[in-house]
Amino acid sequence: MQIDWIRTEAPGGRPVYQQIADAVRAAIASQRLADGARLPTIRQLARQLGVHRDTVATAYEALAAEGVVESAVGRGTFVSARSPSPGAGAAPSFHPTLAPLVERLLDFERARPRFGSSPDAVALHALVPDPSLYPAEAFRRALNRALARGGPELLLYGSPQGDPGLRELLARRMREAALPVDPDELVLCHGASQGIALALRLFCGPGDAVALEEPTYNNALGAALALGLRAAPVPMRGDGVDLERLEQTLARPEVKAFYTIPTFHNPMGTTTDLDHRRALLEVAHRAGVPVIEDGYEMDLRFEGAPVPPLAGIDASGMVVHLFSFSKSLFPGARVGAISARGRLREALLALKQASDLSDALPLQVALAEFVSSGEYDRHLLRLRRVLRARRDALCDALAERMPEWARWTRPEGGYQVWLELFGEIDTHDLLADAVAAGVLFAPGSQFYHDGRPSSAMRLSFAMADEEALRRGVARLSEVVANRLRDGTPVATRVPV
Amino acid sequence: MQIDWIRTEAPGGRPVYQQIADAVRAAIASQRLADGARLPTIRQLARQLGVHRDTVATAYEALAAEGVVESAVGRGTFVSARSPSPGAGAAPSFHPTLAPLVERLLDFERARPRFGSSPDAVALHALVPDPSLYPAEAFRRALNRALARGGPELLLYGSPQGDPGLRELLARRMREAALPVDPDELVLCHGASQGIALALRLFCGPGDAVALEEPTYNNALGAALALGLRAAPVPMRGDGVDLERLEQTLARPEVKAFYTIPTFHNPMGTTTDLDHRRALLEVAHRAGVPVIEDGYEMDLRFEGAPVPPLAGIDASGMVVHLFSFSKSLFPGARVGAISARGRLREALLALKQASDLSDALPLQVALAEFVSSGEYDRHLLRLRRVLRARRDALCDALAERMPEWARWTRPEGGYQVWLELFGEIDTHDLLADAVAAGVLFAPGSQFYHDGRPSSAMRLSFAMADEEALRRGVARLSEVVANRLRDGTPVATRVPV
Repeated sequence: MQIDWIRTEAPGGRPVYQQIADAVRAAIASQRLADGARLPTIRQLARQLGVHRDTVATAYEALAAEGVVESAVGRGTFVSARSPSPGAGAAPSFHPTLAPLVERLLDFERARPRFGSSPDAVALHALVPDPSLYPAEAFRRALNRALARGGPELLLYGSPQGDPGLRELLARRMREAALPVDPDELVLCHGASQGIALALRLFCGPGDAVALEEPTYNNALGAALALGLRAAPVPMRGDGVDLERLEQTLARPEVKAFYTIPTFHNPMGTTTDLDHRRALLEVAHRAGVPVIEDGYEMDLRFEGAPVPPLAGIDASGMVVHLFSFSKSLFPGARVGAISARGRLREALLALKQASDLSDALPLQVALAEFVSSGEYDRHLLRLRRVLRARRDALCDALAERMPEWARWTRPEGGYQVWLELFGEIDTHDLLADAVAAGVLFAPGSQFYHDGRPSSAMRLSFAMADEEALRRGVARLSEVVANRLRDGTPVATRVPV
Repeated sequence: MQIDWIRTEAPGGRPVYQQIADAVRAAIASQRLADGARLPTIRQLARQLGVHRDTVATAYEALAAEGVVESAVGRGTFVSARSPSPGAGAAPSFHPTLAPLVERLLDFERARPRFGSSPDAVALHALVPDPSLYPAEAFRRALNRALARGGPELLLYGSPQGDPGLRELLARRMREAALPVDPDELVLCHGASQGIALALRLFCGPGDAVALEEPTYNNALGAALALGLRAAPVPMRGDGVDLERLEQTLARPEVKAFYTIPTFHNPMGTTTDLDHRRALLEVAHRAGVPVIEDGYEMDLRFEGAPVPPLAGIDASGMVVHLFSFSKSLFPGARVGAISARGRLREALLALKQASDLSDALPLQVALAEFVSSGEYDRHLLRLRRVLRARRDALCDALAERMPEWARWTRPEGGYQVWLELFGEIDTHDLLADAVAAGVLFAPGSQFYHDGRPSSAMRLSFAMADEEALRRGVARLSEVVANRLRDGTPVATRVPV
């Protein structure tokens, strides 16, 4: 079947899936495709247009979501009988023109790997703390006490800055972690994820660029993209960012801030030492570019000596520091904090107010209760013990199962190991096999701003216990071995 | 004392207060102003520079916040002894360059009226529901039950779309309110305030314009400003927006969306009829411009027949509807909802995820419990009764006390009355007298994108009971009468 009613535009225009969807809509409107008509198969259309099958599938999914077409498993895709057509007297459907930024964000979201929900699969992909470790009952009691004591006043709008009691407690903990901060310099926010977006907005307007490590936290890439910022990637080199390349990047006038994860880097799991941190601050200071330090796993060191955070070493106020309870406790309270001084603090409050006025006081006050009662520290003791054992189980299993040239990091805290396979493997291409084999991982490509192929992957020991980690690595090593047998060339170079 | 170390730039450059603060910093750095030196008084400097005293005060406050200067009541402002100076060996202080958008947002925030916290003052300024009416105990029990039943799973990240149970309940309520919506077409968000920001981002990128009624909700103006959007104001005319002017405005190519509050308009309290709504949708449809309908007071009608929301009348999917519990229950749960179809819903989810990943499930599930148990409807019955009595008390007091040419609206729901005094009064100028007399109101100027003087004010009956409303209006009428005796010219024209 030759499809003559669709042509795609020159590259660089609208996303191809949209062009396909529009062509189908137009063909229906012009009666070229009648109600009930069968659409070409995804494979046919992809071949004819020379595009990836996923692109066609996305177009068909979008049309199905609008009710324009219907899919029947094994039969194909058909024009809906109830499809609105101009002649049918139905209300004309509105085809919104989304902001170009939003179109780009949708493309970014579509590129995220989708994981099936096989209950048996070992989940090494997600950086979400294990719910079986949450002190949910203790938190419920803290929340209940807080609301009983606080009464209706807790249900008012909070100040955009957040509960003073929790800020006081956090400032004390930060001071003990070599991060001198005044409670008044903290702005509570909706998890570190909102903290990233707010901190970026402090310095960067649309069209500006933000320097960031590559690989880096994929949701930081999403936040920057959604704000209309360009990524100015700086490669990781060893445990931290390449400082020479950082200096070059920060010298570019459009680069207005540098986002970094110096401790238990996501996705790499590495931590920089004091010398690297001092040198990094020197570079930033010379360039006059502020630093956004993501300290989301600050409380999760299970081994080795802590290194002071950048914000604690810097005395000039050029480092904005992000904290979150989402990884050290649980994400469901949606509480994080940003530390910033002077005008930065004032500007953060204005941005927070313009974003959503304020956060939910009951959860902040419950967390304050939970922290001050000692429950949080008790939880951390247990969690760190569990994480250390899991880290050992994962790294031992990798040593036992993976090819000899593979390399991985050995984090002293947090949840993630970066496994590098080298050569021409794109780990994204292993994902389907891995899902079939019952193990999920995060392909390296998703931590690059342009989604480029990566021979590495992030393995998380957040959700899987030791037994599951061993099972998962065994399955993963089979997938890798099979792919190697299939002939994918693998270089045997080792990291420098 | 002639101050020769400060000059302000030509208009259009950086905010003047910043130029002043920078000049002071530079004078300290160059030792022109020594530690402990006295700065010129606010009055002196304002006179010399030909700027408002508030501008100088803002500069001095910013410097004091940084610790650069110190103020002593009755003595003046001095260079701090501990002020960091380059020669003193202290760490050089970082003077951040904020994104230009943020500077504009800070200027907008500074223009908000500041209200003293006199406990005796009658609060007619704030649109915050009265905490003495919150069913806080019932909500605490619902939250406690929800957490006990839901356990650790409730403390995971939720989906960006929010709890399916609450969406189901909300969709049912909306259908009963003539707004046919599927649970899958709802995206829960962090109050309608976040809903406004997300909905604007769907259609408008930096540099685009959003059409909005004037006067309008001041935080919507702030949200647009923070996103780098220009306001394209359309005047209110009677109960709703002037449709001819709307048509002209929506024809401008940079206008990408129209934000409107058709029911219990904020700040005016008015509601448009079905004919106006149909005509408005016609205008929007002809222009191809989507509509963002703020339905934040949907559940608060205490009189008269409900008018279907725009999103219920429109069948094309061009209306994005916002709902919130913040005014009908309490703001502290920070739960609102956006209804949107097809690609709009998909884009909203991507924007929500890039903003803060997801909201707190415990509060959403507790609200679902609270709604399904009937507690929410019981609360609404009581609240509407109270609000109606307060509306009557406020309007009766205005009729008794205000000059005969004054006019005000009589809302059929919600919390606010718009009082128009006409003539050359700028109600912002009455604020200091009113605070001194023990009554607070929201000056009309804050509901205009450019903060232009307004002879109107918003009076809220959210927080004050009937007795307090009568007392407040009595005080307010004295303030107005005094100002008239002082000779402010007052026109006696009446509204057309």
